[in-house]
Amino acid sequence: MSLPECSVEQLTQFIGPNATNAEAAAKFICSQFSAVGNKFVDTQFAVDNTYLLFSAYLVFSMQLGFAMLCAGSVRAKNTMNIMLTNVLDAAAGGLFYYLFGFAFAFGGPSNGFIGKHFFGLRDVPTEAFDYSYFLYQWAFAIAAAGITSGSIAERTQFVAYLIYSSFLTGFVYPVVSHWFWSSDGWASATNTGNLLFSTGVIDFAGSGVVHMVGGIAGLWGALIEGPRIGRFDHSGRAVALRGHSASLVVLGTFMLWFGWYGFNPGSFTKILSPYNSGNYYGQWSAVGRTAVTTTLAGCTAALTTLFGKRILSGHWNVTDVCNGLLGGFAAITAGCSVVEPWAAIVCGFMAAIVLIACNILAEKVRYDDPLEAAQLHGGCGAWGIIFTALFAKEEYVNQVYPGKPGRPYGLFMGGGGKLLGAHVIQILVIIGWVSATMGPLFFILNKMKLLRISAEDELAGMDMTRHGGFAYAYEDESHKNGIQLRKIEHNSSSTPTPTPTTDS
Amino acid sequence: MSLPECSVEQLTQFIGPNATNAEAAAKFICSQFSAVGNKFVDTQFAVDNTYLLFSAYLVFSMQLGFAMLCAGSVRAKNTMNIMLTNVLDAAAGGLFYYLFGFAFAFGGPSNGFIGKHFFGLRDVPTEAFDYSYFLYQWAFAIAAAGITSGSIAERTQFVAYLIYSSFLTGFVYPVVSHWFWSSDGWASATNTGNLLFSTGVIDFAGSGVVHMVGGIAGLWGALIEGPRIGRFDHSGRAVALRGHSASLVVLGTFMLWFGWYGFNPGSFTKILSPYNSGNYYGQWSAVGRTAVTTTLAGCTAALTTLFGKRILSGHWNVTDVCNGLLGGFAAITAGCSVVEPWAAIVCGFMAAIVLIACNILAEKVRYDDPLEAAQLHGGCGAWGIIFTALFAKEEYVNQVYPGKPGRPYGLFMGGGGKLLGAHVIQILVIIGWVSATMGPLFFILNKMKLLRISAEDELAGMDMTRHGGFAYAYEDESHKNGIQLRKIEHNSSSTPTPTPTTDS
Amino acid sequence: MSLPECSVEQLTQFIGPNATNAEAAAKFICSQFSAVGNKFVDTQFAVDNTYLLFSAYLVFSMQLGFAMLCAGSVRAKNTMNIMLTNVLDAAAGGLFYYLFGFAFAFGGPSNGFIGKHFFGLRDVPTEAFDYSYFLYQWAFAIAAAGITSGSIAERTQFVAYLIYSSFLTGFVYPVVSHWFWSSDGWASATNTGNLLFSTGVIDFAGSGVVHMVGGIAGLWGALIEGPRIGRFDHSGRAVALRGHSASLVVLGTFMLWFGWYGFNPGSFTKILSPYNSGNYYGQWSAVGRTAVTTTLAGCTAALTTLFGKRILSGHWNVTDVCNGLLGGFAAITAGCSVVEPWAAIVCGFMAAIVLIACNILAEKVRYDDPLEAAQLHGGCGAWGIIFTALFAKEEYVNQVYPGKPGRPYGLFMGGGGKLLGAHVIQILVIIGWVSATMGPLFFILNKMKLLRISAEDELAGMDMTRHGGFAYAYEDESHKNGIQLRKIEHNSSSTPTPTPTTDS
Repeated sequence: MSLPECSVEQLTQFIGPNATNAEAAAKFICSQFSAVGNKFVDTQFAVDNTYLLFSAYLVFSMQLGFAMLCAGSVRAKNTMNIMLTNVLDAAAGGLFYYLFGFAFAFGGPSNGFIGKHFFGLRDVPTEAFDYSYFLYQWAFAIAAAGITSGSIAERTQFVAYLIYSSFLTGFVYPVVSHWFWSSDGWASATNTGNLLFSTGVIDFAGSGVVHMVGGIAGLWGALIEGPRIGRFDHSGRAVALRGHSASLVVLGTFMLWFGWYGFNPGSFTKILSPYNSGNYYGQWSAVGRTAVTTTLAGCTAALTTLFGKRILSGHWNVTDVCNGLLGGFAAITAGCSVVEPWAAIVCGFMAAIVLIACNILAEKVRYDDPLEAAQLHGGCGAWGIIFTALFAKEEYVNQVYPGKPGRPYGLFMGGGGKLLGAHVIQILVIIGWVSATMGPLFFILNKMKLLRISAEDELAGMDMTRHGGFAYAYEDESHKNGIQLRKIEHNSSSTPTPTPTTDS
Repeated sequence: MSLPECSVEQLTQFIGPNATNAEAAAKFICSQFSAVGNKFVDTQFAVDNTYLLFSAYLVFSMQLGFAMLCAGSVRAKNTMNIMLTNVLDAAAGGLFYYLFGFAFAFGGPSNGFIGKHFFGLRDVPTEAFDYSYFLYQWAFAIAAAGITSGSIAERTQFVAYLIYSSFLTGFVYPVVSHWFWSSDGWASATNTGNLLFSTGVIDFAGSGVVHMVGGIAGLWGALIEGPRIGRFDHSGRAVALRGHSASLVVLGTFMLWFGWYGFNPGSFTKILSPYNSGNYYGQWSAVGRTAVTTTLAGCTAALTTLFGKRILSGHWNVTDVCNGLLGGFAAITAGCSVVEPWAAIVCGFMAAIVLIACNILAEKVRYDDPLEAAQLHGGCGAWGIIFTALFAKEEYVNQVYPGKPGRPYGLFMGGGGKLLGAHVIQILVIIGWVSATMGPLFFILNKMKLLRISAEDELAGMDMTRHGGFAYAYEDESHKNGIQLRKIEHNSSSTPTPTPTTDS
Repeated sequence: MSLPECSVEQLTQFIGPNATNAEAAAKFICSQFSAVGNKFVDTQFAVDNTYLLFSAYLVFSMQLGFAMLCAGSVRAKNTMNIMLTNVLDAAAGGLFYYLFGFAFAFGGPSNGFIGKHFFGLRDVPTEAFDYSYFLYQWAFAIAAAGITSGSIAERTQFVAYLIYSSFLTGFVYPVVSHWFWSSDGWASATNTGNLLFSTGVIDFAGSGVVHMVGGIAGLWGALIEGPRIGRFDHSGRAVALRGHSASLVVLGTFMLWFGWYGFNPGSFTKILSPYNSGNYYGQWSAVGRTAVTTTLAGCTAALTTLFGKRILSGHWNVTDVCNGLLGGFAAITAGCSVVEPWAAIVCGFMAAIVLIACNILAEKVRYDDPLEAAQLHGGCGAWGIIFTALFAKEEYVNQVYPGKPGRPYGLFMGGGGKLLGAHVIQILVIIGWVSATMGPLFFILNKMKLLRISAEDELAGMDMTRHGGFAYAYEDESHKNGIQLRKIEHNSSSTPTPTPTTDS
């Protein structure tokens, strides 16, 4: 955003030799313009960093959303367990993404497969990568891990959780984000060299990079562990294991919706970028349009789910509507910046259908995913990738991914099939990579008896057996007038040792 | 915010014929200034859109606040129902406001009654209406519907809810916002033609446009439905039907407080507007002042309610304090940008009194409103409109509504009675319009047996009869050591069909 | 951020007498630059106020975090009580900070001890203090009071709460913030006169000013009241009194984490400040770095607590991890802007150790603090102050506190011991001041029988005896099929009088 150069030489000539000191006048004027230009640079960095930081905070708030959504969707006896995994996603993710993850993802210049600079934030900030960028990408990384934790809820050992979460946040996910988002990535639409199929993959905010990665990882975990006890009865019929609090589900869903405004519009990472300086239409408009497409896709998916489930099950179900809504968001995430608002409605409608179909399929094959995470993030995420290849609009593609005129865009918009080809490859590659890394990990953990908890623990609930007690205590021992929900243990919540200390 | 024009002709003359090429020098210099001016345009759009988008996200977070406030204020057996209505407010509102609502509200040029452009966001963005503006206004529209849902909670058929919510968000509310907020609106303070009573209505963020509309709509719904079973005993005495979770009430209240900082200060929609370029006092100060007046009104109303209710009822009640706080916010919403902070204290104090009085009146007339929505948003909203007509300060009115010097302001501040006249008309017109549209709608729904649920359903709770189960399950079947709160149904939460599927 | 002065005289000379009207040309050009400079002033105010206002909103959201954290950490029977105190922190704090607090804190020019202007926001805004600044500081003040409320939870009379909260927010805290943050403060690092030990105290976002103040105040309250009934058994052994909802604890913790991004990075109060105009590295980078150090300290503390408590108590405890996380945040708050990210990891690791040690010590001395507030905010806060004196980096200190070259920095970074000396004094002075003000207040309240509730009330729970009923009602009277958690009182929740009114 610096100004066009103020040429002292030229201006000196223009003012000419009859001026007392034409060169001094020209220098004077040009130095003023230079100062003006510098101030615009400052302004741009301040505005863009403000925009990116607050977007990062919003994305972080999705972790709260995941925690509440997961907590409400599991049975009360496993609430502490699932919430702890969500807190640790963020915490362990913070350290691992700082140490390795960010470097693997964005540490250029590098090869197309994996980054190799910025370990421990060494040499950050640079002109392209300020601290705000790291924070934003960290918030994305922990979202992926949060998705996976839902699939394997209610039956996974805590230590397995720590291992896979670190591996996913620190390695598996960063590599995928390098491929599709780093300018060095072999399939990135911003690659400065040759583009895959002359287009690269347009996965703007990560239907594939984040949602499919989290969903496929969860799929393998849940498949290898098998269903929760009681999820399918002796004849193999599905039995709903209802979550313990719809209020927490709705709370989590709304927080995710709120945070998605950081996730999708925030993925521009900059807002002060004119498409044509001096005009009201610029990147700020594209940011707003992205917020609108995101909203419309989620809204349409929610309504479609409402009526679809009403027809299928006979009642109006709020938790199903919440999942439908999130499926719409997961789907629009890839194309949110490059499609028209009306196309987002198509996207959301189909996302709801995809989710319902995936859930029917999951029951048929006895697949148990307490949060429907593989179906929702994997299934709707994959649909979103295809959708983008069909509906991406030429004008928007060229504005959001500038500098390569004539690049392919959506098939249904007249842009040919190249983008669709690239996107099919993205889906296959993500499935392959995540299966090749997370599959063996879960398999080995299972073989080492580190994956699934014992049947006794599962029946009793992990909170009592592993986490020091039940999550709720609506009555306490000292008060005998009410009904006691459960015997309250006399230890450990606020004491550092199980047996009370005595003066040593 | 473009620069003053750089006149090449004039500058050429000044440098004069003795320069080698005076015209070239002048053109050179002026083209630099032109580039500078364009960059300021870019900067302004980026800053203002950032401001408006994040404000919109805050306003959206109020929907989470409403959901939690409503959930906590109803009995546990109706929690799923009320939360589903809140999710659908946002979702159905998104579609209807996109298709019709925004066009009816802001689609100028138009007549004074209703807008007529921008259906389905056609021709958006324009210089005045970017996508961010649509998103912001959508978040307002769904807030109005959210208010109404509180009044008719715990006894309304879900299908009635879908109908009135779409009608309110898509038509009734947009028309009102057109009247008072569009520059074409017949009663708008920004009307570019003749102003109502030479002033137009100063309802800055919508004490009338949003809160009264939602409250009056709720009033009609609740009146036509009648009270919940058990709300008044056989002798007609009021019986409190306590909400099931004060924690959710407090959570919702704080989220609404948080979101109100998007609602009130955000209503400037722009922040980079100097009142006098180069000075520290500009619209950014007015935005901050608006946040302060909002805060002080709410705080004062909360404290007034605390002590008032202590005197009346003998205990310190947190849910009453929450409602008082929200009443203060609803009242200051009209005048938040044009009054002094001390006046906001007056506003909040009276809002608490108004709310207490409305609640006493409601009991006397056997009016049952589970969320006190009509009293709070209708009553305190109306007070806020009057308050603004009394306390609006001349300086602030002229800064916030510029371009019409000598316009009327608050009666108590020496500004005469014209503003009060216009504001009384606003109250009457809103009551009239909402009554004329929503009243018949609820009446017809009632006649068609689509409004109120059956007495059996009401006693059993809508969650069990209509929404597939109870919202909470603190124990599950597989765990026999605890007390079972309620038999858990074996179906439907995550299954698409009521009877489990078998391999087909 | 205005431009360098455009000297008409000089430019006139340069263009010289051969121009037709050199002075006019120069004036013309300079007036254009003057307009440009003014626009930059406008831009800077708009950007900085946007940044500060949204940061203030985030800090405010911490009040929601405190409310949920506190609610979840106490027994169900005292939930209404603790949440009411959190709502009133914000509300009473709003009025008192408006009337007195802000003036005491920042009302310069003044002496080093206490400010003396801006009562009731008179003469605000000024160039340095706009409304946004007040709002931001108010959100800090109520955070301090929120900390204290945790220490004395479950046994304190509500009237005592109102008194100490007003006193703390309106006087005790503002005075401390004057000392360390006002440019007039005797120990402030921004003092424009002589600096304490040539350095002043670097307590960037308030490990001392906010957290220690709140924690020490809580310590005195809890000490004077003594432990809750049942907290230590007859033999003096500690008995854990578990909070009633881990979900609320996790919700509150995540909200606090979210809000801390307003608390720490927001404490710059401005973001559009270049360190070297035209360069990508400026205050926006320091803001981002502050967000990163904050994140890493919290994450490390959480992980350290997880494994530390696992070793000590044998299980993975989510509420302990939450407290550890918050301890890491409280510690990094002082030095967040002036240390390297790797140092933040050291900070967080030690903070977790400090918290565990403080908790062991507290049990040994029979100190009962339901929220561990004195240990967490007092103990970890004090560690954070020492940490800053050890690890503050020269470059960052000079960027964040400019204008005094050669100032001391961290001892371990080669900056000598002066900063450590100043920081030890800060700790002592805060302990002394808070003890001298809050100690006697709690003592007198206790003597006047206004501090602690009766044993009967404590056993029954304050919600039933003082706040009109239990916070939760999962079943209602009209529905007999379920288990009734507790008899529901027939009065007062939504009625203004305890006995129903009759027509008068």
